[in-house]
Amino acid sequence: MGLRTGDQYVEGLRNRKHVKVYVMGKRVEDVTTNLFMKPSLLSFKATFDAAFQEDTRDLARAYSPFINEEINRFVHIHQGPQDLVAKVKLLRALSHKTGSCFQRCVGWDGLNTMYIITGKLAEKGKPVYRERFLKYLEEVQRRDLALAGAMTDARGVRSLRPHEQPNPDAYVRVVEERDDGIIVRGAKANITGVALVDEVIVMPTRAMTEKDAPYAVAFAVPLDSPGVTVVVGRQINDVRKAEGDIDGLPYMSHHEGLIIFEDVFVPWDRVFLYQEWQWAGPLVEVFSAFHRQGYAGCKSGLGDVIIGAAYNLAKQIGVADKPNIVDKLTEMVFLNESMYSAGLAASWEGKKLLKDGGWWVNPMYANVTKHLVSRFPYEISRLSHDIAGGIIGTAPSEFDLKNSEIRQLVEKYLQGVPEFTAEDRLRMLRLLENVSVSVGFLIESVHGAGSPAAQKIVFSRLYDFQGAEAVAKRLARMRGPEPPGTPEPHKKSDVEK
Amino acid sequence: MGLRTGDQYVEGLRNRKHVKVYVMGKRVEDVTTNLFMKPSLLSFKATFDAAFQEDTRDLARAYSPFINEEINRFVHIHQGPQDLVAKVKLLRALSHKTGSCFQRCVGWDGLNTMYIITGKLAEKGKPVYRERFLKYLEEVQRRDLALAGAMTDARGVRSLRPHEQPNPDAYVRVVEERDDGIIVRGAKANITGVALVDEVIVMPTRAMTEKDAPYAVAFAVPLDSPGVTVVVGRQINDVRKAEGDIDGLPYMSHHEGLIIFEDVFVPWDRVFLYQEWQWAGPLVEVFSAFHRQGYAGCKSGLGDVIIGAAYNLAKQIGVADKPNIVDKLTEMVFLNESMYSAGLAASWEGKKLLKDGGWWVNPMYANVTKHLVSRFPYEISRLSHDIAGGIIGTAPSEFDLKNSEIRQLVEKYLQGVPEFTAEDRLRMLRLLENVSVSVGFLIESVHGAGSPAAQKIVFSRLYDFQGAEAVAKRLARMRGPEPPGTPEPHKKSDVEK
Amino acid sequence: MGLRTGDQYVEGLRNRKHVKVYVMGKRVEDVTTNLFMKPSLLSFKATFDAAFQEDTRDLARAYSPFINEEINRFVHIHQGPQDLVAKVKLLRALSHKTGSCFQRCVGWDGLNTMYIITGKLAEKGKPVYRERFLKYLEEVQRRDLALAGAMTDARGVRSLRPHEQPNPDAYVRVVEERDDGIIVRGAKANITGVALVDEVIVMPTRAMTEKDAPYAVAFAVPLDSPGVTVVVGRQINDVRKAEGDIDGLPYMSHHEGLIIFEDVFVPWDRVFLYQEWQWAGPLVEVFSAFHRQGYAGCKSGLGDVIIGAAYNLAKQIGVADKPNIVDKLTEMVFLNESMYSAGLAASWEGKKLLKDGGWWVNPMYANVTKHLVSRFPYEISRLSHDIAGGIIGTAPSEFDLKNSEIRQLVEKYLQGVPEFTAEDRLRMLRLLENVSVSVGFLIESVHGAGSPAAQKIVFSRLYDFQGAEAVAKRLARMRGPEPPGTPEPHKKSDVEK
Amino acid sequence: MGLRTGDQYVEGLRNRKHVKVYVMGKRVEDVTTNLFMKPSLLSFKATFDAAFQEDTRDLARAYSPFINEEINRFVHIHQGPQDLVAKVKLLRALSHKTGSCFQRCVGWDGLNTMYIITGKLAEKGKPVYRERFLKYLEEVQRRDLALAGAMTDARGVRSLRPHEQPNPDAYVRVVEERDDGIIVRGAKANITGVALVDEVIVMPTRAMTEKDAPYAVAFAVPLDSPGVTVVVGRQINDVRKAEGDIDGLPYMSHHEGLIIFEDVFVPWDRVFLYQEWQWAGPLVEVFSAFHRQGYAGCKSGLGDVIIGAAYNLAKQIGVADKPNIVDKLTEMVFLNESMYSAGLAASWEGKKLLKDGGWWVNPMYANVTKHLVSRFPYEISRLSHDIAGGIIGTAPSEFDLKNSEIRQLVEKYLQGVPEFTAEDRLRMLRLLENVSVSVGFLIESVHGAGSPAAQKIVFSRLYDFQGAEAVAKRLARMRGPEPPGTPEPHKKSDVEK
Repeated sequence: MGLRTGDQYVEGLRNRKHVKVYVMGKRVEDVTTNLFMKPSLLSFKATFDAAFQEDTRDLARAYSPFINEEINRFVHIHQGPQDLVAKVKLLRALSHKTGSCFQRCVGWDGLNTMYIITGKLAEKGKPVYRERFLKYLEEVQRRDLALAGAMTDARGVRSLRPHEQPNPDAYVRVVEERDDGIIVRGAKANITGVALVDEVIVMPTRAMTEKDAPYAVAFAVPLDSPGVTVVVGRQINDVRKAEGDIDGLPYMSHHEGLIIFEDVFVPWDRVFLYQEWQWAGPLVEVFSAFHRQGYAGCKSGLGDVIIGAAYNLAKQIGVADKPNIVDKLTEMVFLNESMYSAGLAASWEGKKLLKDGGWWVNPMYANVTKHLVSRFPYEISRLSHDIAGGIIGTAPSEFDLKNSEIRQLVEKYLQGVPEFTAEDRLRMLRLLENVSVSVGFLIESVHGAGSPAAQKIVFSRLYDFQGAEAVAKRLARMRGPEPPGTPEPHKKSDVEK
Repeated sequence: MGLRTGDQYVEGLRNRKHVKVYVMGKRVEDVTTNLFMKPSLLSFKATFDAAFQEDTRDLARAYSPFINEEINRFVHIHQGPQDLVAKVKLLRALSHKTGSCFQRCVGWDGLNTMYIITGKLAEKGKPVYRERFLKYLEEVQRRDLALAGAMTDARGVRSLRPHEQPNPDAYVRVVEERDDGIIVRGAKANITGVALVDEVIVMPTRAMTEKDAPYAVAFAVPLDSPGVTVVVGRQINDVRKAEGDIDGLPYMSHHEGLIIFEDVFVPWDRVFLYQEWQWAGPLVEVFSAFHRQGYAGCKSGLGDVIIGAAYNLAKQIGVADKPNIVDKLTEMVFLNESMYSAGLAASWEGKKLLKDGGWWVNPMYANVTKHLVSRFPYEISRLSHDIAGGIIGTAPSEFDLKNSEIRQLVEKYLQGVPEFTAEDRLRMLRLLENVSVSVGFLIESVHGAGSPAAQKIVFSRLYDFQGAEAVAKRLARMRGPEPPGTPEPHKKSDVEK
Repeated sequence: MGLRTGDQYVEGLRNRKHVKVYVMGKRVEDVTTNLFMKPSLLSFKATFDAAFQEDTRDLARAYSPFINEEINRFVHIHQGPQDLVAKVKLLRALSHKTGSCFQRCVGWDGLNTMYIITGKLAEKGKPVYRERFLKYLEEVQRRDLALAGAMTDARGVRSLRPHEQPNPDAYVRVVEERDDGIIVRGAKANITGVALVDEVIVMPTRAMTEKDAPYAVAFAVPLDSPGVTVVVGRQINDVRKAEGDIDGLPYMSHHEGLIIFEDVFVPWDRVFLYQEWQWAGPLVEVFSAFHRQGYAGCKSGLGDVIIGAAYNLAKQIGVADKPNIVDKLTEMVFLNESMYSAGLAASWEGKKLLKDGGWWVNPMYANVTKHLVSRFPYEISRLSHDIAGGIIGTAPSEFDLKNSEIRQLVEKYLQGVPEFTAEDRLRMLRLLENVSVSVGFLIESVHGAGSPAAQKIVFSRLYDFQGAEAVAKRLARMRGPEPPGTPEPHKKSDVEK
Repeated sequence: MGLRTGDQYVEGLRNRKHVKVYVMGKRVEDVTTNLFMKPSLLSFKATFDAAFQEDTRDLARAYSPFINEEINRFVHIHQGPQDLVAKVKLLRALSHKTGSCFQRCVGWDGLNTMYIITGKLAEKGKPVYRERFLKYLEEVQRRDLALAGAMTDARGVRSLRPHEQPNPDAYVRVVEERDDGIIVRGAKANITGVALVDEVIVMPTRAMTEKDAPYAVAFAVPLDSPGVTVVVGRQINDVRKAEGDIDGLPYMSHHEGLIIFEDVFVPWDRVFLYQEWQWAGPLVEVFSAFHRQGYAGCKSGLGDVIIGAAYNLAKQIGVADKPNIVDKLTEMVFLNESMYSAGLAASWEGKKLLKDGGWWVNPMYANVTKHLVSRFPYEISRLSHDIAGGIIGTAPSEFDLKNSEIRQLVEKYLQGVPEFTAEDRLRMLRLLENVSVSVGFLIESVHGAGSPAAQKIVFSRLYDFQGAEAVAKRLARMRGPEPPGTPEPHKKSDVEK
């Protein structure tokens, strides 16, 4: 098997047995032919095709020491900083192909997370999880599976721990332990790409206490497992995507959804963590840093699309070289490259968490990346709207352009400089609108991989305030024992200790 | 006649003779029954009903000295600062009723602008425009007309003046002068509410030179005048508005469109400016300051809706009293009230431009208002998304909630604290999504009443840099003749000179 | 008596009996001749001279209904919104004369606060405080006294209430009650202008509980009362002010200090609040809103100085008309006028708290003002440095310019365009440095009248979150009883209830 | 020779023959004993001592392939990305020792710049500059010299090129060519550390045209060369540094100054560029990117000092764990680490410009670094003041604390929680004041290595707008020839072409 093409991936989805997917309140038998799902399908597919396209082939492939084969990078276990860097570069390049989230990162980050966590457990004397996981990993790599990563639980009342919830299923939990496996119940929300994957890796979403042990569970199941239901969520401008060939159809998109486990059976060889409640926190820490780093790539890639669209629209009305436009364009570049450079730092400064590998990103810079991403895209979006002009919110539909009664009028008055037509303008405006106010560029930038408040907590943990205080005390010649030399600026994460 | 109810307004629209309105490429015979237009119709209608509803009755009415009757404030000529203040307060209150732009301000600001400009011309010895305008004004007030204000031309190549354009119709112009009136040709873009008005007031969009004289024209025409075509523009989430009763239908909205004049005849008594090219600049200055002031009201009103929705969503998951949530909520309040307070200042510090009235806003603070509005709503939007959680971009559709197969699952996992249901959560999420990523709250905040760069130009004109420099020189005891006492911080606008 | 000139004010200071003032560790017998105090003295003096200078005479005077005389506005009780507006306009104009804080606002705001609070107590049936205060007010107005307002206590451990502190004197308190008055002990910190006043009005700094009753005390004492000690604090660039006539001397400045009460006797007729612990909170609320409003004037006035200096420096090197410089200058104008317009709104929307007067600012907009002031000056400062060039941090001293060996070299290489000399450049650079990195423009903007966190608390109290929620619920058609009409956006302050 | 200790460096300065240095208008014979210069001397000295101190020894040393010896890293030519990373890490660590700019980076960046530029010229067939430079480099490394880098010319009228200036010496130029060398005239401004170096490397400050050829000159001279005069500039709080042992003395600082060349002779073997006007632009590009990268280290190091001081001050009054304080502290961390991570990216993504080395930083990320640095320090400063409380601008002097009459009072009322004394508080407040409003943290962050506008120009050059536009066109399915695959996001610098 090995590397699959996009078409093979789609074919694979079609062969899933009996997946329960609901879209806009209707059961969809074949997601690969559903118009609502099409933009998302095309975007997911791009992650497979990238491994065969000249411009991304090298970035999109990697060599797996586990199966001794070239594989799609989206199922690769990072073997060093170079791989971490390649990740963000690949994601930026892929955004250029899709103009949207391509939905395959969460599963990838889930694989790398479970590799590290099961490895840690093995180093601590519990090798069983690692043995299971490695077998699973080989299968994923051999079959080039499309994976979703499912972390965020329904969560009910946010201020209560899992075992304290009025709804005991507010967090996914094990409701029965059997000889051959476990029975799980609960739901995971905001799951990117979930209707279009082969399998889903499920992980806990928060640190836990001993009483939460039944909730400390990580596993993988095929999407067509009995008891699994997926409800696809709505997004800004979703139904428009099924319209015409300017306003909606050409644009790729992504989807997120709710996945519900109604007493789903998971055989032991797919259970990668169970009752090890002390490891739920480190697992979240490892995963979230991986995923926060990745945003450097995909969001700056969307930033490129937006900058390119704004630049073109400025050209279309003859103002691309006006100082105030240039100033806004370069401001967008600055904001965009800031996000990207933080992600590069998180990658180059990656850390080895296991004796024999287990490469992780630098958690401080990964969190810096995500926190920048939680702010700058709204500003990039605003600047792009400023450059595009009011027409970005008032342009006619493509059907006006195609109506022979008014076509000529629309063409006459929508055109800017003679080099571009009204259709050129409409196409570029729609692209900009679709990308700059999308869930993928705005909402996901705030919440994906954890809300801004989560990054702030990491900053408070990783930054060595006492060390910085010692530096200040020494410089202030404050009385008391001389603090020792220059302290490290950052403390170790729990998982590094 | 006098004050009309909302129903009377709708009835009036139905009685228009032959309006050429295109929506999504199709001619719409009756806009009052079109589903695409409905959210916009309801919002426009609210401006009439407000004059009859207890909570807004006083704000929404005013006494007209022109017809000696109580009229709807939206056709009132401001008689002093109190009226200017009442304007922003009314707009804030109306936003609470609609959750969207209600589209009647541009026409209102157009009336007040033409009142001042024709008054100025009269004071300079050209009373004819004023005579015509006053007659028109009385009719508008008596019939309580719904007016659009049309300013932004198609503009073609932005760096060229009207008479230099490759397309001579890129700006609306007079193509023929007749005994009984003029023939105009061209188009106006981004015209708010344009398909749902009785008449449209057309004004030039920029300062002009003598060669642009045929473009220096202001007039009013009924929307059903021969030769007028309206193409309604698309907006974010537009077609969704025609769906169900949670995802789209309940929400009001607004529309903007392109209005095209194909050799439309305007009788002389409807021509309020013609060839007076020197007055195009002051007209734009007067209008834009009026319209920029208004945003203090409507945008802070939408801000209230967003804050209220975010607050409720925080309550629904039990976090409304967490310090980081309170901090974000109060930050939103601060941003929102900043916009509002600048508008109040612009109103209270209003100026009298005519010997017998002609109350204008303070242009410096009106521009400060709009410039704040061009930035803060994106930040308010971002903060609201932060508080709402990732679900704001991933929530299921109402049809999932209504599908008996999965309803129970969606209800179980969408609920937060027991006091609220999943439907409560979905309703509030959809409201927030519809308002916080709308053209009305984002794009219009950037571009309405002029792009941010236009405000910067006003700042450079109105701020007395030489005066500030003289202050600095005196404090620095710089050599040279002692500059005179404390300078005025602001210079006079052209229209005040 | 009545209105005093600046010279009469200085003469008055000299006639104080025995004031214990420490400056840089030394007891200063006559503060009016001390070089360290001179810049501050000149600035305070300007508040008196303004009443006699043509350009500010009208603003700086007001008519007192209490003594039926024209008085200096700095001891005036506001008689309506016009007076509140005149306050911010006067403060802006005065900043132009001083380029620094002029230190007389706290006392003024203290007078207006005590007028309202004692008035409220009278309305509640305790007229004694009001009687005493009115007598005191008449004296202050008749003698045109220079007053400090002292609010911020030493405060010790911030998380403990006054009566819980390890140091019982961490908040000023009454240690003994006598027939003829009270004995007070404690200290007030960060007291603006304290060494250069005739008297000081002392007020509690926070809301209190019954156990804190001895701390709920407000009174006035002459600065030369036995037991009073003042320790003048240091400021950025303080000692430089005593140098030459370019680097330091010409610039005015302000000072703040610690005032310590070591068992100071206060006769009953100077005690304006005692043991009325329920009124400490409202008193702070009233005072802080007054003082927060004022910053609109003085800080935007300093902003004018900085803009003027930056503009001149840009001219000196021939770049004042470059687009990127104009953009920064107009950005500074925008930020500056934003602060000012919020203050105007707070003034025009002022409220009457007493049956027969007691005009207060609008607390919401006053807090918006201050919160803007807590952020924008740092940005204005940064932009001014950007425009001024690196030389703002590296310019030679005036003594280099005056040294005959190197004067020619410095002149040759410091000059920009021929119209200005090296001395011109140095003078303007020093002015900019002195104002843009001063305590008055930076630190005081953050902390004066309460830290940013204090404004956030006010936002959370005054904004009607439940009202906004009701608006959102109605728009979302959320189930449950229909919330009533449009809610007020703001709730009432405690003092208004 | 080789590595020198700090004391040996100071000794070396004393042995300079006849250096003409002016401080505050007076010729200073021995800068090593001058109180005004002392804080700066200590800071410079720290760069030498770091090579002998345990905590920085490894970072501060490097192995030179040119002299086959271990050398101080400040005279090292980077041999790969690891060296570039070591640079920013060293600078961050050194800031912890000094709390100020340590002034040795410009010379270091100058060495690396000249290494690359002379190398490029050699590759283009002009080896003479490289030969001279390598000889010079070996001497610098062997003698461990303290070097200043001098780039910014006096510049006169900013809008004119060097040869167009009314003052022909506004840019440093060759006024005479002799057999044994050249005679140079002109001045360089804002030169960091200039009075405390052994030698100065002079480089052109802008791109040039053929007519500017005499200005296209780079060379090195000892500071005690005949004709060289240094005028040390003033800084915020400069003279305070000579006071006591709390308010000023303990703090290190830096200085910048004007260096004037009055017909100074430079022998040919010290001339590294002459009349090669085409190389002036690339030289500036190479240098500025090096220097912009470095700010990631030193400014984040100062950020650590400020965060540490603010954290300690919060502890001193018992609020370090309050949510609003934690939020501000973590915000500071975020801003600080953002700057740092961009610098790491610029280092790891470094480029090899010469066939046999010539490692340069990535110019895009280096400019991102500096642009972040041009904004964030003012915000970090503001937040630190917010946390510290108003006392940061009003604290008494150390002399008040030492005056027996009032010491007890100051101690009593300045203390917060019992664990810290008033002296502790004063020491930490002074440190924070000295660092957070210093030229080094504010002004230099804006202007050092080029003003913000300069980075914007680089963004506009390096970002591939056409590439981004092609991406957008393809996604918008805009007509015309299909643009080729994913474009590179960045274009090459001139020096890379």
